[in-house]
Amino acid sequence: MNNGFCKDLNIRNMSEKELELRLNEIISGIKKPDFNSAKEMQERLDGKIKPTRSLGVLEDIAVQLAGIQRTAYPEIKGKAVLLMAGDHGVVKEGVSAAPQEITAQLFNSYLSGGGGINVLTNHAGADLVCTDLGISRPISPPELMANRIKNGTDNIAEGPAMTREEALRSLLTGAMVASNAIESGKNILATGEVGIGNTTPSAALITVFTGCSVEEATGSGTGLKNDALKHKHEVIKKAIKINNPNPDDPIDVLSKIGGLEIAAMAGAILEAAKQKVPTILDGIISSAAALVAAKLNPFSIEYMISSHSSEEKGELIALKHIGIEPRLFLNMRLGEGTGAALMFPMVEAALKIADEMATFETSGVSTGDF
Amino acid sequence: MNNGFCKDLNIRNMSEKELELRLNEIISGIKKPDFNSAKEMQERLDGKIKPTRSLGVLEDIAVQLAGIQRTAYPEIKGKAVLLMAGDHGVVKEGVSAAPQEITAQLFNSYLSGGGGINVLTNHAGADLVCTDLGISRPISPPELMANRIKNGTDNIAEGPAMTREEALRSLLTGAMVASNAIESGKNILATGEVGIGNTTPSAALITVFTGCSVEEATGSGTGLKNDALKHKHEVIKKAIKINNPNPDDPIDVLSKIGGLEIAAMAGAILEAAKQKVPTILDGIISSAAALVAAKLNPFSIEYMISSHSSEEKGELIALKHIGIEPRLFLNMRLGEGTGAALMFPMVEAALKIADEMATFETSGVSTGDF
Repeated sequence: MNNGFCKDLNIRNMSEKELELRLNEIISGIKKPDFNSAKEMQERLDGKIKPTRSLGVLEDIAVQLAGIQRTAYPEIKGKAVLLMAGDHGVVKEGVSAAPQEITAQLFNSYLSGGGGINVLTNHAGADLVCTDLGISRPISPPELMANRIKNGTDNIAEGPAMTREEALRSLLTGAMVASNAIESGKNILATGEVGIGNTTPSAALITVFTGCSVEEATGSGTGLKNDALKHKHEVIKKAIKINNPNPDDPIDVLSKIGGLEIAAMAGAILEAAKQKVPTILDGIISSAAALVAAKLNPFSIEYMISSHSSEEKGELIALKHIGIEPRLFLNMRLGEGTGAALMFPMVEAALKIADEMATFETSGVSTGDF
Repeated sequence: MNNGFCKDLNIRNMSEKELELRLNEIISGIKKPDFNSAKEMQERLDGKIKPTRSLGVLEDIAVQLAGIQRTAYPEIKGKAVLLMAGDHGVVKEGVSAAPQEITAQLFNSYLSGGGGINVLTNHAGADLVCTDLGISRPISPPELMANRIKNGTDNIAEGPAMTREEALRSLLTGAMVASNAIESGKNILATGEVGIGNTTPSAALITVFTGCSVEEATGSGTGLKNDALKHKHEVIKKAIKINNPNPDDPIDVLSKIGGLEIAAMAGAILEAAKQKVPTILDGIISSAAALVAAKLNPFSIEYMISSHSSEEKGELIALKHIGIEPRLFLNMRLGEGTGAALMFPMVEAALKIADEMATFETSGVSTGDF
């Protein structure tokens, strides 16, 4: 476990205009992956002793990583799950089965190593970096609050979640966390989060960005029953109506009906893409963040690796809109990045196939139709 | 890599009646997993700091292993993929895009460590045990042929694949390979196979055992195109018609339209179940073997863990008939046990959740609705 200490405290002091400029630098710095490296990787894989393309998604991932790393011999040097934490004013509306104090309690549990995500990052040999973007309660030690933008978002059923400046600051803080992780040697990241109530802004974002209905985007979160789920639908509809976000301005949407940790996840995805590092997505909150990133620069999609299909059905709509498919169907709905962490061994397997499997040329296995 | 040297050469000398008796001992030795241990495991998981059942399939697997190992604290002590090899007379009918000599060539590649399954078993920290049940060509060193029942099955489009005695001998050889692996310390197994043409008998078995149509059960194997696929349907229909297997006698079906390696896989699943050891299934061939095992003793189903949904659509029909769902959707169709090997990290993750994740009681996270 690590923590997302703020290295670049300048973000706290930058004006809205400066923040916007800095974000635009990141966005415009994202380039398409290298087609030739990807093609060369597929040629390497086609030489392996197997029917062409018979390793499916493992081949896709190896090819994607080749394009991203601009080499037909990509490597995984270090892995991290970036867990972003934030609270949500909208929980006042009764949209979550769990009380808000759980966010801080869970955050503390990650710091002491007992969360589900601790277990699964350890299992994957990955680091866990936890960043408080906006938990509503104090956490200790206080320096862990250095990146906190505010003590949770405002209630989106009454007005905007945050100002545009706060959304930009959250995005850039996420970018900074990703940048620090990359600087420390990680070259594959995964998104995780904690924030009681955050399936609500995620469903709202997915509704606005994809044009689906609120009912399609909304699941039961940590365990809402029928009437409470209907109420959640109403709250999301109200939030969208009151805030009237502009779907053509992703930052406007994010600030009005999003979340601090969602913004940070989007920023991390974008910064990683700029630095030619892929990010594994997790569930619905991560997918909502991915939508924000995709709207800001569609090239960022090529740096995303899907993981599981969570129990929150809005995730599939977001991923479909982006054009990527989940691969693990494990009926999970914990969040934290737990689904993403389970994808690390798959990604590593993909590169090992490229590096370790024998070829038709050297193995004595006939080529031809096979 | 290991190999499936025959420890119990008696199998070779046993009469049909003795073989049948030995098989019945295995079948009748399979008991239901322990409900109380499974229940106690679910209680352990319900105490972890997460919404109830929010780790979905990871929880299912932990609960299943608890029932199988008869303890709420199951452990994985050693892992192995049991790869069974056999050739198929039916390839004469043009049902495979790949020539028959590929089976022996691939088997050799596993022995020298270059196969896809070598890469993925190494990645999973699992052993690979390769057994020649009936490759059509010689392999070397010759002692590796010690378990060979015959040099490939006979053409099922002309008559039975093998005699009942040969089917029983294959089943028991598979059981012996599983038993040896368990004796050497493995307590979770996975099925793998190589055998050019073996999607054809697998589809035939799935058709007969589940009552689906030949078209539903049949995929394109290593890469058949449209007309060739239609021809494959015709061959399977002919094989079923000519042999007229009795669906109520699984050994009759297996011997008439099955395969030597398929029988061995079924035998391994049954022996493992008898010894309270789970087996991870792979693709369509493995699922056909699982159907045979399930027909011989339905309790064996509770010892099966699914892995991926392969590109061969008959697999889903077989698994649905058994009542289990695949979990990894990776568009793979290599066989060898490659999909099963990718499931090991998921199973290990499941037990680590049970063992390492903090509880509500000790972590300071509130219980209640969450």
